Amino acid sequence: MPAKLTYQSYGKSAVRLTKVKRLPDRHELIELEVSIELSGDFADSYLAGDNSKVIATDTMKNTVYALAAAHPIDSLEDFATALARHFMQAHAHVYTAIVRLAQTSWRRMSVDGREHPHSFFGAGAERRRVMLHVTRGKPYMWAGIEGLVLLKTTDSAFKGFLRDEYTTLADTDDRIFATRLSADWLYDKPVPDWNAAYHAVMDAMVRVFAQHRSLSVQQTLYAMGEAALEACPAILVIHLEMPNQHRIPVNLQPLGLENRNEIFVTTTEPYGLIKATLERESIE
Amino acid sequence: MPAKLTYQSYGKSAVRLTKVKRLPDRHELIELEVSIELSGDFADSYLAGDNSKVIATDTMKNTVYALAAAHPIDSLEDFATALARHFMQAHAHVYTAIVRLAQTSWRRMSVDGREHPHSFFGAGAERRRVMLHVTRGKPYMWAGIEGLVLLKTTDSAFKGFLRDEYTTLADTDDRIFATRLSADWLYDKPVPDWNAAYHAVMDAMVRVFAQHRSLSVQQTLYAMGEAALEACPAILVIHLEMPNQHRIPVNLQPLGLENRNEIFVTTTEPYGLIKATLERESIE
Amino acid sequence: MPAKLTYQSYGKSAVRLTKVKRLPDRHELIELEVSIELSGDFADSYLAGDNSKVIATDTMKNTVYALAAAHPIDSLEDFATALARHFMQAHAHVYTAIVRLAQTSWRRMSVDGREHPHSFFGAGAERRRVMLHVTRGKPYMWAGIEGLVLLKTTDSAFKGFLRDEYTTLADTDDRIFATRLSADWLYDKPVPDWNAAYHAVMDAMVRVFAQHRSLSVQQTLYAMGEAALEACPAILVIHLEMPNQHRIPVNLQPLGLENRNEIFVTTTEPYGLIKATLERESIE
Amino acid sequence: MPAKLTYQSYGKSAVRLTKVKRLPDRHELIELEVSIELSGDFADSYLAGDNSKVIATDTMKNTVYALAAAHPIDSLEDFATALARHFMQAHAHVYTAIVRLAQTSWRRMSVDGREHPHSFFGAGAERRRVMLHVTRGKPYMWAGIEGLVLLKTTDSAFKGFLRDEYTTLADTDDRIFATRLSADWLYDKPVPDWNAAYHAVMDAMVRVFAQHRSLSVQQTLYAMGEAALEACPAILVIHLEMPNQHRIPVNLQPLGLENRNEIFVTTTEPYGLIKATLERESIE
Repeated sequence: MPAKLTYQSYGKSAVRLTKVKRLPDRHELIELEVSIELSGDFADSYLAGDNSKVIATDTMKNTVYALAAAHPIDSLEDFATALARHFMQAHAHVYTAIVRLAQTSWRRMSVDGREHPHSFFGAGAERRRVMLHVTRGKPYMWAGIEGLVLLKTTDSAFKGFLRDEYTTLADTDDRIFATRLSADWLYDKPVPDWNAAYHAVMDAMVRVFAQHRSLSVQQTLYAMGEAALEACPAILVIHLEMPNQHRIPVNLQPLGLENRNEIFVTTTEPYGLIKATLERESIE
Repeated sequence: MPAKLTYQSYGKSAVRLTKVKRLPDRHELIELEVSIELSGDFADSYLAGDNSKVIATDTMKNTVYALAAAHPIDSLEDFATALARHFMQAHAHVYTAIVRLAQTSWRRMSVDGREHPHSFFGAGAERRRVMLHVTRGKPYMWAGIEGLVLLKTTDSAFKGFLRDEYTTLADTDDRIFATRLSADWLYDKPVPDWNAAYHAVMDAMVRVFAQHRSLSVQQTLYAMGEAALEACPAILVIHLEMPNQHRIPVNLQPLGLENRNEIFVTTTEPYGLIKATLERESIE
Repeated sequence: MPAKLTYQSYGKSAVRLTKVKRLPDRHELIELEVSIELSGDFADSYLAGDNSKVIATDTMKNTVYALAAAHPIDSLEDFATALARHFMQAHAHVYTAIVRLAQTSWRRMSVDGREHPHSFFGAGAERRRVMLHVTRGKPYMWAGIEGLVLLKTTDSAFKGFLRDEYTTLADTDDRIFATRLSADWLYDKPVPDWNAAYHAVMDAMVRVFAQHRSLSVQQTLYAMGEAALEACPAILVIHLEMPNQHRIPVNLQPLGLENRNEIFVTTTEPYGLIKATLERESIE
Repeated sequence: MPAKLTYQSYGKSAVRLTKVKRLPDRHELIELEVSIELSGDFADSYLAGDNSKVIATDTMKNTVYALAAAHPIDSLEDFATALARHFMQAHAHVYTAIVRLAQTSWRRMSVDGREHPHSFFGAGAERRRVMLHVTRGKPYMWAGIEGLVLLKTTDSAFKGFLRDEYTTLADTDDRIFATRLSADWLYDKPVPDWNAAYHAVMDAMVRVFAQHRSLSVQQTLYAMGEAALEACPAILVIHLEMPNQHRIPVNLQPLGLENRNEIFVTTTEPYGLIKATLERESIE
């Protein structure tokens, strides 16, 4: 037998949940995609087909719905904590539980200038998300967002970059900057109001995006990460990814026209992909 | 030769355009997907490989960008008109031009309570669209929307339906109603303000969706179409499609819990698909 | 009341079915996506919320699974016939039934040079499909394929096309021709062996694609349609759609290199879209 | 300044390349999606907007096409090596280069029983892939596959698993086993024939999938990994991921029918996700 099993995990992905909270004056709508991933004493199922310690992924799915019924889900962070705690407490042979939640964006309708009590629009493609990683030691609560589409039509330059034999791109002082932000930050401890912390971080990053006079995607990304760390002292680390969703100026000269930086091809691929992780400087 | 060519058309699809209008106090952002489809005296390219009358689809793409540079694109309807007119006027052997535009939704950012002059969020997945069908006779201007996600958590029933040997669905007084509305309406004549007409129709339909005490998707769809015809006298016909994006109550009883109409499986498929076309009654 | 209901239909879409036929020496695997669409005396559900004649779409879904259990599904055409017949016979108030089937492609594994009795690979993205349209009069059986990816690296030219002020494309004698064929043909009567007819048509079209010295996509499309009509006398009409999935030669000159028609950008959009319908010439 | 930059990388993703090799008797077709990711002395672009060391992602794209023109691309591994070497050698301030290649599957057409010299079908959705990770020290060559769809209709059981308050799944002796295999293995040294090694590993895994009497997805996954390590001595580690793409037996009893393990709902989500890493036991 030439092999040893050096890593294993399993779980249920894409458990989709809608919860309606029927309050007296209005309904609240929560829509989540949940994934559960467990590591632990499961090697016998790999090595010998012995399933006696295997929590079926179907059971994980049932557990998500059962706990959703009992839990208020006032924040993703609290619900993730309840799910992870369940698997860790119910099953001593689970060593690590990773709970991922991603929340579909909905926006309450207004009718005649008033918020409607129970009708909603689908909002943007972005999803607030949480990844809670719990071991028998410390929990790691990562919160963040995926797929937030941001675009600014000016205040973005890219010039003075390295030129080699394969460089054809021209310097530019004024280009469109469009991206789909993904960002995840690690709390060093629980905060009193997870939702307030989330919004403080997001507002800080969006404000920087809008106002920054960008010399590169890299520079703007860094400034956004720095603003996030400033906005919420409980954040230890933040990781950002920003694909550069290029808008390419159309060459109208062969058509007898001038392009005054107005007409662009919207592209999806290829795309630049810029990533970084920022950590809070320790004070000492 | 056993075959005759009874229909042909060709064109360019998925031409993606971003236009920035750089006004003194703010920028405006327009993002469109454009398709051009032409019919006409092109049979020789099919039958004999004679391309002398073929307008290359690459030329159509160039034409979209060229006309976008010259045109203000204040409404989809006006820009579609310009595009269709170009192909009909420039090439007498084109008999029919179909221009399709679909507009990505963007939302201007607010920073510190003020609208930002040049920064935007990606908004919902819905796209305003136009299909303009022009022949040597009358033009047909279809305007509409695709992919508008709507959900209400109550005021939706479905009961008293036909029961046969294969029916297992129970009657319900209170279900979630979620859909992705597509709707297209035909104007019988140009209107002075295409954008105002669009918003009047959309507001009327959304209001009905929110307030209707629905006995079936069919009934709500009809009421929405009727409201659209009432909201804009220039509309002759409206066609609506509403997939029923089921939220299925989870049976929590085997888990020892009660589901008080709160916990649902979010599903994508299968889906009910309800369609109808409503026409204005002529007065006479 | 300003509106009249001039068209309505409803049904269930995306009913996904796997059937295993457990024969003595091997298993057969059938995977279908089924859609049912009915028109008939359903106006009261739209106009008055009266559901008493509504066959719930959930019942349609159940019906698909129930009939799949009883039916051998030896061909898509036979199973579509059984489904349409059920709805037309069970419910006199149904006027039209449209049954759509699309079959996922699977390929039996070979192990040690022998076909494996019960293991399969997912094959290409193409799906054989059927659309059966049944009224109280004649049935229309459309059979075909969607998404068949075809590519040839030579024997494809495009030149001598119309040139206007917006034309920049150069003539070419030798380009890549890549497409995703969709084709649907109408049988004028049932054929003894639906599967044999399907394969005869497909083989004829693929052979033409491979061997044709193409002067345009239009010309090749027509030749393929003509070959289909020749291959199967029971076909009355065929409709083909061929997007032109451009491979664009990379300009390597600025990089100090020559492109000997070898290096291309693979593109998805924009794409040319070529369509035509061919009908059999009647003899008389 | 509260933040420090603890990780950064950037690059170009989704560079899509088609290469045609025009041999005397036949053409060969290679279609790749390429991503380049670099780490190195780029901090100034994040911290100060100083781009002087930044290799533009547009230049990376050009480099991919330029090197594709010069290189035979006889294997993904060789081309990845050439790309990584270029960035490491041309730019001393690059510390790490990650090159990812994924190859679209094409199948040569046969016409009249002979292989056609230049026509191809799109084959399955699976893509052979390579991730080459090069630092100033040792290179890591990961080879593998993504998205290979496998299904067996029998010889798959799942029973004897842990039961708790949320378990409702029944034991089964005979279920459908369907998955989309992703697997990546690490070579400890270059092998003389990368393609032969790839096929030896894939054949070994597929054979196990087909023949294994599975007691769990975990057990089959492990057996496949073990077979891979046996098939190619140059492999040090293999990582596998197998989503469990459930086929759920339809309960036909309420419809008055029996389901003899023949009729299933094809589902996409939720899905079980099983992962493991196997390492070769060292001999000493």
